[in-house]
Amino acid sequence: MSSIDHDTVRAVAWRDGALELIDQRALPQRLETLRLTTCTEVRQAIADMAVRGAPAIGIAAAYGVVLAARARYARSRLHWRRDIEADLYNLKQARPTAVNLAWAVEAMRAPIPHVEGDPEPVLLEAAQRIHRDDVRANRTMGRLGADLLAPGSGVLTHCNTGSLATGGHGTALGVIRTAYAEGKVAAVYAGETRPWLQGSRLTAWELARDGLPVRLIADGAAAALMRAGAVDWVIVGADRIAANGDVANKIGTYGLAVAARHHGIGFMVVAPSSTLDMAVASGEAVPIETRPADEVLSAAGVRVAPAEGVDAWNPVFDVTPADLIDAIVTERGVVRRPDAAKMTRLMAGPECRGA
Amino acid sequence: MSSIDHDTVRAVAWRDGALELIDQRALPQRLETLRLTTCTEVRQAIADMAVRGAPAIGIAAAYGVVLAARARYARSRLHWRRDIEADLYNLKQARPTAVNLAWAVEAMRAPIPHVEGDPEPVLLEAAQRIHRDDVRANRTMGRLGADLLAPGSGVLTHCNTGSLATGGHGTALGVIRTAYAEGKVAAVYAGETRPWLQGSRLTAWELARDGLPVRLIADGAAAALMRAGAVDWVIVGADRIAANGDVANKIGTYGLAVAARHHGIGFMVVAPSSTLDMAVASGEAVPIETRPADEVLSAAGVRVAPAEGVDAWNPVFDVTPADLIDAIVTERGVVRRPDAAKMTRLMAGPECRGA
Repeated sequence: MSSIDHDTVRAVAWRDGALELIDQRALPQRLETLRLTTCTEVRQAIADMAVRGAPAIGIAAAYGVVLAARARYARSRLHWRRDIEADLYNLKQARPTAVNLAWAVEAMRAPIPHVEGDPEPVLLEAAQRIHRDDVRANRTMGRLGADLLAPGSGVLTHCNTGSLATGGHGTALGVIRTAYAEGKVAAVYAGETRPWLQGSRLTAWELARDGLPVRLIADGAAAALMRAGAVDWVIVGADRIAANGDVANKIGTYGLAVAARHHGIGFMVVAPSSTLDMAVASGEAVPIETRPADEVLSAAGVRVAPAEGVDAWNPVFDVTPADLIDAIVTERGVVRRPDAAKMTRLMAGPECRGA
Repeated sequence: MSSIDHDTVRAVAWRDGALELIDQRALPQRLETLRLTTCTEVRQAIADMAVRGAPAIGIAAAYGVVLAARARYARSRLHWRRDIEADLYNLKQARPTAVNLAWAVEAMRAPIPHVEGDPEPVLLEAAQRIHRDDVRANRTMGRLGADLLAPGSGVLTHCNTGSLATGGHGTALGVIRTAYAEGKVAAVYAGETRPWLQGSRLTAWELARDGLPVRLIADGAAAALMRAGAVDWVIVGADRIAANGDVANKIGTYGLAVAARHHGIGFMVVAPSSTLDMAVASGEAVPIETRPADEVLSAAGVRVAPAEGVDAWNPVFDVTPADLIDAIVTERGVVRRPDAAKMTRLMAGPECRGA
């Protein structure tokens, strides 16, 4: 716990002309790396959740555009700009809720009209800038978020928002890493995050690897944990933040926000400004991905519910209204008690990096 | 859905001089019956959760006393009353939170001083009376609870409180069965109830077997389901109710109560009066069983968390304070907005069956 650079994992990396991803479906049993050389493979890896976490998805998609440009340019120096449009469209469709995916693809589209000759060097530089900026944003957010914590804090997080979900360091988990390195964190609790168990499989793996102590809880135990006085802050990430400050995030987040408010506990959302979708007025307009019932009817790949006669409701995200949120932490600054006016001011501010 | 007798399962049965239990650890994959002929086997079945659910545990323990009396009397017609004390003590220690267990053992102790000759017929009659009374209480509660529901209600339940958890029909699930038979229930949702998955494994199995449609949800999805307007009542059971109306029940219950209050949704607890412990002033004094971390670190028998460096907090029950409860339904009547005075009046009422 000596340094703020307290993470040893890279979910997404560009190496020797290819995109390398840690296959997050195999963790924590096996640490396997996928090596992708086509945009179609990248799209599939996003849809199948080999890579997940809103910022990591965005970065992977950016490298996917590099691979698309390489293939399209090799096929036609004349028409690659036209042909790549299908790739950009397909990448954006891979998953519906996280807006960083669309944001990253649009950011990669911007230089295309100005490229001369082989587009790969220019686009690779753009993708690497997105990647670097994400890590830098995470470190900034880590510091800003940690400043909100008093020494001796108990923190509860949900899903996985660490190095596996981002370019590195993490969003909510970046705040926890930074605060832990500063000696402010007395205990880290993580909800297991059914049905995909990102908390048990990914967050616990990351933190154990880095030597941060973590205690898992069943998601249903969160309110009892709060009542026991063990939690000072709930700290979560976001897949999309609406213009009014409503936050779409992993299913279970909203229940944590309700319970936190009931117990007078702080509720912090940590996400880069690329997660803000000013085109969406409120959380009600965010498309919420629903996945197959079988994810709930099974656990760890084993069918637990009866084979017949049983259905499940399986939305993978929920919406937490802004009025339950104490702080939204972005790399542009912290918005306390978010609302539409404050979010607009944040995005209009001088640190705007465009989109 | 033609009749109120809408359940086809018996978790606990006395047959040909032995106690037969459905082994609830094997469901829903296999329907296996355990045949127990000694008190020690009964104690073990309770501790290992082959039988679970507060009322079912109490009934199983009552039959366990019959088996104990048979063995002690065969060994010594002179000293069986003294010798059986160790069996009564051991039965009561099998699990700490549910008070029905101690209640049933004490109810079985009552006739012992008055028995002449072979105690088995007298004690078997006492155990069968406890069993019959439980089923009758469940049907009464089913009717009283169903009366609180408006037609077209969406209901959410937690854990398993049905025929598998009681002598038959169920407590919370008995209310749902009765209300469904009366055509009042538009939709039944059940939380999967991590870590043991009683919702997925047991509640879904019972309801599917009886032809009641049920949709499972991840426990973390409950608040989002309420926000979506799908739930009018949360209906749960209880393992122990304190003198002030605080309710100890399966972990996750308290979070549902907090979320229900936030959304203005009714919260109903259904339990026989044997669940009331007037000797415990408030929920804070109820002993809460904590089980091994491995139950959270694994799912469906498969390890999901990393093999090392990760711990879990695994209390199996939580306490819901009385002020979050809209109605406690017992066979003696319904207590709205429970408090100590109302609970005392309920227990002092004319329908008292003694304890």
